[in-house]
Amino acid sequence: MSAIHLAQESFNLNPGLSLIGYGLGAIGPGVGVGLIFAAVINGTARQPEAQSKLMSIAWQTFVLVEVLALIGLVLFFIASTGGAPE
Amino acid sequence: MSAIHLAQESFNLNPGLSLIGYGLGAIGPGVGVGLIFAAVINGTARQPEAQSKLMSIAWQTFVLVEVLALIGLVLFFIASTGGAPE
Amino acid sequence: MSAIHLAQESFNLNPGLSLIGYGLGAIGPGVGVGLIFAAVINGTARQPEAQSKLMSIAWQTFVLVEVLALIGLVLFFIASTGGAPE
Amino acid sequence: MSAIHLAQESFNLNPGLSLIGYGLGAIGPGVGVGLIFAAVINGTARQPEAQSKLMSIAWQTFVLVEVLALIGLVLFFIASTGGAPE
Amino acid sequence: MSAIHLAQESFNLNPGLSLIGYGLGAIGPGVGVGLIFAAVINGTARQPEAQSKLMSIAWQTFVLVEVLALIGLVLFFIASTGGAPE
Repeated sequence: MSAIHLAQESFNLNPGLSLIGYGLGAIGPGVGVGLIFAAVINGTARQPEAQSKLMSIAWQTFVLVEVLALIGLVLFFIASTGGAPE
Repeated sequence: MSAIHLAQESFNLNPGLSLIGYGLGAIGPGVGVGLIFAAVINGTARQPEAQSKLMSIAWQTFVLVEVLALIGLVLFFIASTGGAPE
Repeated sequence: MSAIHLAQESFNLNPGLSLIGYGLGAIGPGVGVGLIFAAVINGTARQPEAQSKLMSIAWQTFVLVEVLALIGLVLFFIASTGGAPE
Repeated sequence: MSAIHLAQESFNLNPGLSLIGYGLGAIGPGVGVGLIFAAVINGTARQPEAQSKLMSIAWQTFVLVEVLALIGLVLFFIASTGGAPE
Repeated sequence: MSAIHLAQESFNLNPGLSLIGYGLGAIGPGVGVGLIFAAVINGTARQPEAQSKLMSIAWQTFVLVEVLALIGLVLFFIASTGGAPE
């Protein structure tokens, strides 16, 4: 019976599952950052003189949304190699 | 029979599955924080003098949304190493 | 019993799972970039003279959204070949 | 027992999983391109003389959204045949 | 024991998984085409004389959205029979 299972190969599915995790985590920031900058563009179209004020609010705040996807990117590399060191 | 199973390797899928969990948990905050700051930008475009008042509301409240993703980040490290210590 | 499992073939499912991950990661940017340029078009319809200003904001900012999908594309090739080198 | 498992056939599930990936990747561009052209139609309804200007913006920008689904289409053929060559 | 396992049949799950993929890929175009024609109807309600102009824009552009679902339909037949020929 020993030769048997030696031949059975099992694959580490962590990379694939981790990429699903990154992908899910990128949905929210993708929509959220889109909402923020769409608001900037709409606001600039209504009041062109307010553009610099609106852009400064947007640059301060889009990072708070984008960081959720970048955390997912960092966690992808942690999880795809087998999780956090114990 | 012992040689068999020694050769059969099984992978711990917890890291990958945990990252899927974090990713799902980051969708909501990503969209939610985007909605909050888009509302701030829209409000500032309409009434520029209300900017500081709107920003103070946003800073107080976006944390309540963002924290849901950060809890997911903490739980990722707990779950990827095999769950909470018993 | 040894000949048996030698014949059992197991497939590496990482490519398929990775493509699910890319697909999920493309949802957010797809909607987000759509929101940004829809705002440009709406703004141009309201104030045609503001078109160049709005377009310059959009070109600066859509990249911040699009890049989330392109990161997913890069990670697809990493994950489908078995994850990051350890 | 050796003849047995020789008859056991296991299927490569990568094509099915890859199509799930393409399908997910088509959600975002489907909604995003819809948003862009809906904005063109709304803008044309309000200012019919701006139609050509709005359409030229839309043709330039919808590709940036549509390409996310076409990348998914290319990756489908890569992933369904077993992933990128290593 | 050998006759037993000869009877063990494993099923090809690719058709089912592929249909999940097509279904997911039909979400985006379903919403996107709905947005486009809803915009046509709103525009016609506001300016009835612009109907033919709006409809001609819509007919040109809804195809770009609808085609994402039709690509999913074609890929369904490729994936459900075991993937692209290698």
